[in-house]
Amino acid sequence: MARLPSIITVFLLSLFSISIPVNRTQQLRFNKKTGEFRILQVADMHYADGSKTPCENVLPQQLPHCSDLNTTLFLHRMIHADKPDLIVFTGDNIYGPDTTDPVASMNAAFAPAVSSNIPWAAVLGNHDQESTLSREHVMRHIVGMKHSFSQLNPPGVDVIDGFGNYNLEVHGVDKGSNHESNESVLNLYFLDSGDYSTVPSIPGYGWIKPSQQFWFQQTSSKLREKSKAAPGVGIGLAYFHIPLPEYSGFDASNVTGVKQEGISSASINSGFFSALVESGDVKGVFTGHDHINDFCGEMMGVKLCYGGGFGYHAYGKAGWSRRGRVVVASLEKKLDGSWGAVKSIETYKRLDDDNLTVIDKQVVWSS
Amino acid sequence: MARLPSIITVFLLSLFSISIPVNRTQQLRFNKKTGEFRILQVADMHYADGSKTPCENVLPQQLPHCSDLNTTLFLHRMIHADKPDLIVFTGDNIYGPDTTDPVASMNAAFAPAVSSNIPWAAVLGNHDQESTLSREHVMRHIVGMKHSFSQLNPPGVDVIDGFGNYNLEVHGVDKGSNHESNESVLNLYFLDSGDYSTVPSIPGYGWIKPSQQFWFQQTSSKLREKSKAAPGVGIGLAYFHIPLPEYSGFDASNVTGVKQEGISSASINSGFFSALVESGDVKGVFTGHDHINDFCGEMMGVKLCYGGGFGYHAYGKAGWSRRGRVVVASLEKKLDGSWGAVKSIETYKRLDDDNLTVIDKQVVWSS
Repeated sequence: MARLPSIITVFLLSLFSISIPVNRTQQLRFNKKTGEFRILQVADMHYADGSKTPCENVLPQQLPHCSDLNTTLFLHRMIHADKPDLIVFTGDNIYGPDTTDPVASMNAAFAPAVSSNIPWAAVLGNHDQESTLSREHVMRHIVGMKHSFSQLNPPGVDVIDGFGNYNLEVHGVDKGSNHESNESVLNLYFLDSGDYSTVPSIPGYGWIKPSQQFWFQQTSSKLREKSKAAPGVGIGLAYFHIPLPEYSGFDASNVTGVKQEGISSASINSGFFSALVESGDVKGVFTGHDHINDFCGEMMGVKLCYGGGFGYHAYGKAGWSRRGRVVVASLEKKLDGSWGAVKSIETYKRLDDDNLTVIDKQVVWSS
Repeated sequence: MARLPSIITVFLLSLFSISIPVNRTQQLRFNKKTGEFRILQVADMHYADGSKTPCENVLPQQLPHCSDLNTTLFLHRMIHADKPDLIVFTGDNIYGPDTTDPVASMNAAFAPAVSSNIPWAAVLGNHDQESTLSREHVMRHIVGMKHSFSQLNPPGVDVIDGFGNYNLEVHGVDKGSNHESNESVLNLYFLDSGDYSTVPSIPGYGWIKPSQQFWFQQTSSKLREKSKAAPGVGIGLAYFHIPLPEYSGFDASNVTGVKQEGISSASINSGFFSALVESGDVKGVFTGHDHINDFCGEMMGVKLCYGGGFGYHAYGKAGWSRRGRVVVASLEKKLDGSWGAVKSIETYKRLDDDNLTVIDKQVVWSS
């Protein structure tokens, strides 16, 4: 059941936020004590005008007091419960058509991440630009926000489709520990999966283009070269909005989580899955877009996962809790107590109920 | 029925060859008199050791006198009958496993094109390197042959998968005519569709990689910009060996020609079809690989065609003639008698029977 937040509740909860001072030159690193790197995925907030924007598909008794603030409250609660090292917003962060001022909507939508002082990153969905700002300008605003690790596009790349294609390297534990490492041990890829097809003969949603796939493969190749492809070093995860056509290859029998609606991928297959499998480092793909699908399925050694709908002003299913996904990458603890390579990557979801119930815990990859 | 050639017959036929002097700096141009540009596609010659290499899948009465020389004879006859302006070999030009000397095999296989003095171009299949030469060295030899317009890879491109990715521009009729044109009016793309997957989790054949698709889209974009995207200017055709997964979208009800075997594309979809449709200039794709499929089907405004098996040392179907495909691009004749933009692109196949019977004439694209 959705909680009924007030502006005061939301404010008070923000005081509980974990305080990790970050700055733009800071490196993402595994935690020295736990050997973990924790990523919270927030899919489809569909934020609009805050307390004035009603919820969709909630139970009748929830409706009168339900607004975007429920999304804000849920995000505060998840940050507090899961203590992520990075928060990733996988698009449709704001819902353009219902947004009076997209900058104000973005500021409000990402506020719990900003106030938590936790690094965060975002990509675009198909609705983020459906207000008065173009995709480029939406992404530019996101890049400029406090504690945002998002980038407009990769530096040094002349030609790339879309906005918000970039990668982040997660390094080993802090220098000064036994395991000093400047190599990236976990590589995160963020891509703009587009909004809608602009090709008359192809109906429907956008897709990841050859320019982006070429950049991904080049980047993956360089990172694998750097990390010498040692086992558990240079493992990758990819985050974007629109699911790949390969998500349609699953049914209830071979997934963890639920498939309650069709897969709204592009109507053509632009081949990014084959590019991922060929490069070989990406072991998990995390998308949003379909709010009431929240499954993970495995294909050719890659877990294809949905975040599960997070936002209250997004379509959902009354009585079926909004949810967020957490990924926990863990380093191997060596006999001398130092941390080694990535040992495992696990994932679970948390429901927005009274207990923030954890469900569907599963392994994404293990060495 | 296959004819029974002798070495003398083949030699005599070579004397009939059309004599158009060409050199490497020569531009491909539409014919001044006819306003046509004619392309002969030769798919899967599977050439090995000439007269010593027997035929596969021919009728019992054909078998005793049937060898690679039947392939040579058929090529001579088609060149003589169709008077192509360009001959395109779409891979499996030689059949590596049965080839004693790959250079000798290539020299013999392409000899009718060389002796005809007609410009020719080739791409690699999956069998060309299955002898003692690597794919790179096979392609290097092809590039160095007389009248070959083939290229090892596009100049100025640092990173591209495979060997034999290039494009050729076909210009308007000769300067000096009413229609002086230095713009390319027909763009031909040649790609290396690979041989076999090197990714353990992906079985089967190779595919066109993101690096190649990126090069294609960049090249297409530049050519369209140059031609200002005027109607009928900058139309493209693509030639490679392995059919795209989209070829599986057809059955007998929606093709011209026959589908007599499964589509042996890669087991994953690397997205080149979506790249083609997105760029929008390519109206026809011509592959080989499946010898007893010879159909064309249309998808999203693009004709996807097989050449049909040409070679006698390739598997086939006894009693079902070997065949080659001709594409004829025609310019519009203006009221003042000069030639305009491309008006239509048609295709037909010719069977290796006594009459070189023309079948399945159809429109690929028309303005």
